[in-house]
Amino acid sequence: MKVGIIGANGYSGVELIRLLKQHPNVDIEMLISHSTSGKNVKELYPHLSEVCEKTLESIDVQDVSDRVDLLFFATPSGVSQGLVPKFINKGVPCIDLSGDFRLKDPDAYTKWYQKQGADRSDLEQAVYGLAEINHKEIKEAKLIANPGCYPTASLLGILPAIKMGITQPDTLIIDGKSGISGAGRGVSIGSHFCEVNENIKAYKLGSHQHIPEIEQTIQDNAGIDTNISFSPHLVPMTRGIMCTIYADLKQQLSTEEIVGYYKDFYHKSHFVRVREPGVWPATKEVYGSNYCDIGLIADSRTNRLTVVSVIDNVVKGASGQAVQNMNLLNGWDEWTGLNLTPVYP
Amino acid sequence: MKVGIIGANGYSGVELIRLLKQHPNVDIEMLISHSTSGKNVKELYPHLSEVCEKTLESIDVQDVSDRVDLLFFATPSGVSQGLVPKFINKGVPCIDLSGDFRLKDPDAYTKWYQKQGADRSDLEQAVYGLAEINHKEIKEAKLIANPGCYPTASLLGILPAIKMGITQPDTLIIDGKSGISGAGRGVSIGSHFCEVNENIKAYKLGSHQHIPEIEQTIQDNAGIDTNISFSPHLVPMTRGIMCTIYADLKQQLSTEEIVGYYKDFYHKSHFVRVREPGVWPATKEVYGSNYCDIGLIADSRTNRLTVVSVIDNVVKGASGQAVQNMNLLNGWDEWTGLNLTPVYP
Amino acid sequence: MKVGIIGANGYSGVELIRLLKQHPNVDIEMLISHSTSGKNVKELYPHLSEVCEKTLESIDVQDVSDRVDLLFFATPSGVSQGLVPKFINKGVPCIDLSGDFRLKDPDAYTKWYQKQGADRSDLEQAVYGLAEINHKEIKEAKLIANPGCYPTASLLGILPAIKMGITQPDTLIIDGKSGISGAGRGVSIGSHFCEVNENIKAYKLGSHQHIPEIEQTIQDNAGIDTNISFSPHLVPMTRGIMCTIYADLKQQLSTEEIVGYYKDFYHKSHFVRVREPGVWPATKEVYGSNYCDIGLIADSRTNRLTVVSVIDNVVKGASGQAVQNMNLLNGWDEWTGLNLTPVYP
Amino acid sequence: MKVGIIGANGYSGVELIRLLKQHPNVDIEMLISHSTSGKNVKELYPHLSEVCEKTLESIDVQDVSDRVDLLFFATPSGVSQGLVPKFINKGVPCIDLSGDFRLKDPDAYTKWYQKQGADRSDLEQAVYGLAEINHKEIKEAKLIANPGCYPTASLLGILPAIKMGITQPDTLIIDGKSGISGAGRGVSIGSHFCEVNENIKAYKLGSHQHIPEIEQTIQDNAGIDTNISFSPHLVPMTRGIMCTIYADLKQQLSTEEIVGYYKDFYHKSHFVRVREPGVWPATKEVYGSNYCDIGLIADSRTNRLTVVSVIDNVVKGASGQAVQNMNLLNGWDEWTGLNLTPVYP
Repeated sequence: MKVGIIGANGYSGVELIRLLKQHPNVDIEMLISHSTSGKNVKELYPHLSEVCEKTLESIDVQDVSDRVDLLFFATPSGVSQGLVPKFINKGVPCIDLSGDFRLKDPDAYTKWYQKQGADRSDLEQAVYGLAEINHKEIKEAKLIANPGCYPTASLLGILPAIKMGITQPDTLIIDGKSGISGAGRGVSIGSHFCEVNENIKAYKLGSHQHIPEIEQTIQDNAGIDTNISFSPHLVPMTRGIMCTIYADLKQQLSTEEIVGYYKDFYHKSHFVRVREPGVWPATKEVYGSNYCDIGLIADSRTNRLTVVSVIDNVVKGASGQAVQNMNLLNGWDEWTGLNLTPVYP
Repeated sequence: MKVGIIGANGYSGVELIRLLKQHPNVDIEMLISHSTSGKNVKELYPHLSEVCEKTLESIDVQDVSDRVDLLFFATPSGVSQGLVPKFINKGVPCIDLSGDFRLKDPDAYTKWYQKQGADRSDLEQAVYGLAEINHKEIKEAKLIANPGCYPTASLLGILPAIKMGITQPDTLIIDGKSGISGAGRGVSIGSHFCEVNENIKAYKLGSHQHIPEIEQTIQDNAGIDTNISFSPHLVPMTRGIMCTIYADLKQQLSTEEIVGYYKDFYHKSHFVRVREPGVWPATKEVYGSNYCDIGLIADSRTNRLTVVSVIDNVVKGASGQAVQNMNLLNGWDEWTGLNLTPVYP
Repeated sequence: MKVGIIGANGYSGVELIRLLKQHPNVDIEMLISHSTSGKNVKELYPHLSEVCEKTLESIDVQDVSDRVDLLFFATPSGVSQGLVPKFINKGVPCIDLSGDFRLKDPDAYTKWYQKQGADRSDLEQAVYGLAEINHKEIKEAKLIANPGCYPTASLLGILPAIKMGITQPDTLIIDGKSGISGAGRGVSIGSHFCEVNENIKAYKLGSHQHIPEIEQTIQDNAGIDTNISFSPHLVPMTRGIMCTIYADLKQQLSTEEIVGYYKDFYHKSHFVRVREPGVWPATKEVYGSNYCDIGLIADSRTNRLTVVSVIDNVVKGASGQAVQNMNLLNGWDEWTGLNLTPVYP
Repeated sequence: MKVGIIGANGYSGVELIRLLKQHPNVDIEMLISHSTSGKNVKELYPHLSEVCEKTLESIDVQDVSDRVDLLFFATPSGVSQGLVPKFINKGVPCIDLSGDFRLKDPDAYTKWYQKQGADRSDLEQAVYGLAEINHKEIKEAKLIANPGCYPTASLLGILPAIKMGITQPDTLIIDGKSGISGAGRGVSIGSHFCEVNENIKAYKLGSHQHIPEIEQTIQDNAGIDTNISFSPHLVPMTRGIMCTIYADLKQQLSTEEIVGYYKDFYHKSHFVRVREPGVWPATKEVYGSNYCDIGLIADSRTNRLTVVSVIDNVVKGASGQAVQNMNLLNGWDEWTGLNLTPVYP
């Protein structure tokens, strides 16, 4: 199967290259980049020398449609909404790593992304690609809206409890901590080494665009209309997201009981690993892999559940989950080409 | 005035040396260390060459009492409780950076520290040295229990709101993020560079010994008996603590109103800087200084207050606040010798 | 084929697990560790949960010989010299990642390692496993002395020039810069995060045990008896080694000419990538992979050659090269199971 | 005394603010910035809140001359050459932290900086501000060319040996390792956190603009016309430079002898600390301070001297040395306002 990557010059794009190069069922046919077309990808990323030395191409819908069987969009928000429908119309399934097709309500998109959203009819075709939760719908999809990094860690961490009905609505608080790669390769003072190193920064508290994505998915899966608190922070590392999630419990439950329920819930999920009570996951334990590791405690002093969920934001939070979705879409085992042991240390 | 430092070979100890060397009113008379006595401190810390080349001494209560006018304890928990009373009896005021005299209830100490606590009569003499809150009591104290790093950031961040009575009891959640120096210089796998770098770890959720310290201080200052959730995390940096604090609001209030109240509250506090609405503090902005910087938002969607509070854990969270307490104790301006501009970048 | 790892609880050991898990031709039969036997490896390394959950075993020569077809030693220096001969005698080929069998002269070992060396007869059996240089000998070996991390980067960087005869003997200077993982997982003040972070340290200048290994290999390959200067430094990162190598040129040569020669020299070497003139490699460009990337300049002002050579010290500098040697030993393509794209960013 | 800072919005500029705020003899009268004039400096650098809240001003030569007694230029290369002469003419002494007045030969400037240099007559007035070496000339200067960061570390490290005449000309090799702040606050892919973190990069080997500065100062001080090799590297930290310097010895000398000579040479130098034989300096040991720490070895195997010299590039390598030069210029003790204990850890 031949695939193309639009936005191949960004961090999600090169991570797709890394993952797809070791995938047994696909060949990378095209690397596409508006801003750097004509350059060889190894000029931008010398680590790809002798691994992938393709020239970045500009986009031509007909040409791309003729050459590829599936297309990944690793583009900034606002780009894919105009292009994806053209490829869908030509029968090319698309997996969009941006936020353009995640929110079902274009007005919500406009509110949180501060730009015009996709057409409502296009949005209706999109399946939210949270692989562990929506695998059935993903298998039938033509257009997959690959989840955001924070939503992936947050939702895998808290959806089991919410679906079980053990938590109080409107008490959900997510404290997110992310490495810097989540902001992409674009240059700014905010990503300057000297501003990030030896530093923790809070940003976009209460206004981050991943808030409606999390709330919508809770609504879709548990029928609960809720307003969450979400506080993202940047920590001085390249890869990794940890979400520490708080929710009041409706009734007294032990940590052991809830861990047991989580293990059942993820029994068939290859990429979710639930820690034993008292053991907390760390982001480095999933570095470079598609795992989501989860630890939790039900604190009897406060009757509150705290869940800690970690992913590699570039893999499970972006390109890895996109490959997992491609696998589901094609009826392959979801771990095909994704059996990556975390790189440790 | 002559001062001594017990536990001078740890990180809090050497930070006391840095701060006291530039203090106009004191001389360091003695550096005391049980485990490294006989060595010159510059052998352990070459950065002190030509700055402070004292030999570390072992402890002799009479000798120390004769030579110093004030004593800092920068020792691990469990050490100062047996020594401090002897020095107090000889008229030497003590500032204890460990947790030994912070909790008024020795049973609580035993529960959270898993060791025997100080005598109740000694605990009664201790004043909790949260300088911005307890300055009056500190001025009269003989024994100051210098606050923990997390409690300093947390309490300075949330006490104004609690004292104002605008938050719901029992909704307080503190998500703490700390650099590694907070764990001291002792070696362990947990502080190994390769285990910490490119990593975030959660630890001691619901069981950290700073929980009762925070709860007790809330009780002392607002008369509220509360159970808090506190989740500490280690982030890959040397210095700095950020506490992100969540509490439900009793009534609808704007961010501007609450920022205004905080500014009033800290009007006379030299070391607390309250950010304007929409501006979030970062730990690097207080690096090497005694500042505590605070930003906050009252989110109308959730009717929840979120406060972000940052300190340098080694300065305001330990040695800097100890010097501030020494200043108060002696009737000096609290910023004497502490007017340190943060080191940036 | 079934393999075992002795010293499986160290960083080289767990990296062998990562690499061997994705190797198509081998199964990990045994993980052996003296100090942590009886524990499951996932207790020590939670990132291996559901990847490799073997229990660490203690060593029993007969049992190991019965169960494995090949044995890796990822042990500290001084350990393998007593064990390897027993396994060789039982027909089990051994690949030793420690320094015990690298130096042909046991007196040199004693001098540089400050401990007793292996028997001269055992040393004679050992083949130095610098795969790109000694592949023929490796294919016939029973005992492979896997090269040190600094020697791998240094020798791959400078041997082409030395063998070409273009450099002056006795002008060779190697300035090494290494991440911290090279020192292993053992705890010490020197590997404490707060001592390493935001810091560069020089250490063991002129006395590092890799000096005689480099000199011996130059002697073996070019017949030149030389004394090199080697200055190792620790830089604040987990993985990666860069060696900057200086040597006076005998005659005026252009950068282009020498780059051309290097490209010829490594024409058939899958894992060495030579950069174009003016392009310098960076350690991150080989992160997690078995590549050695090389850039160089012939400076006409000084008539001096400077070569920059980078590897991932845990892969090409240890476990990756060990797997490469296993491949050669078994007649497989040297890249079998080792086609790892560097993890970037 | 009133001083002004041109280029106050860069890293050297804000470090001057930090240092001058604690200087007993000066007041900061003006902060000048072409690109950010009109903004309050605390908007760009919140760490300066309540420390220095001046508004950045644009430049007006007459106004500046009327208001300040001394002027610091913390500007990119090419800026000060046109402005400094105007201020000198008006009797305002200038300390230029850029490279514009360091090289006596404007053609050399053009060659290495790839832009037009200052007028020869202006260059003649400039004194090279390597404070430990040129203190006499500095005391009489009107225009001080503050040395570059690499030259400061390199020259303080090797000039004693060169002046002593113990090293072979034309064998001098400097391997420089720098934190990222040396490149300034300007944004580029090269300073992006994800490109720098967990990475060492070599750059500008043989072509760095600090090469002629080092060679000229060796010529000025020892009368030796030499071509050096200089290889700069970026290491993942914010502050700190280490230069590892190699030179062949003319005769056999012991490490102890040369250490002794260095100690004599720097006997009166407050800011140079020479380590005992076998002890190596680390950059963190001078963090935030104006020290230059030096360790060395004379290796009898190679008859080569290796010197390791470390500074904080932002302090001794830029703003600290500028303040030291201001002190000398005004006849004050050179350490006035500069007695900063390194921040450790």
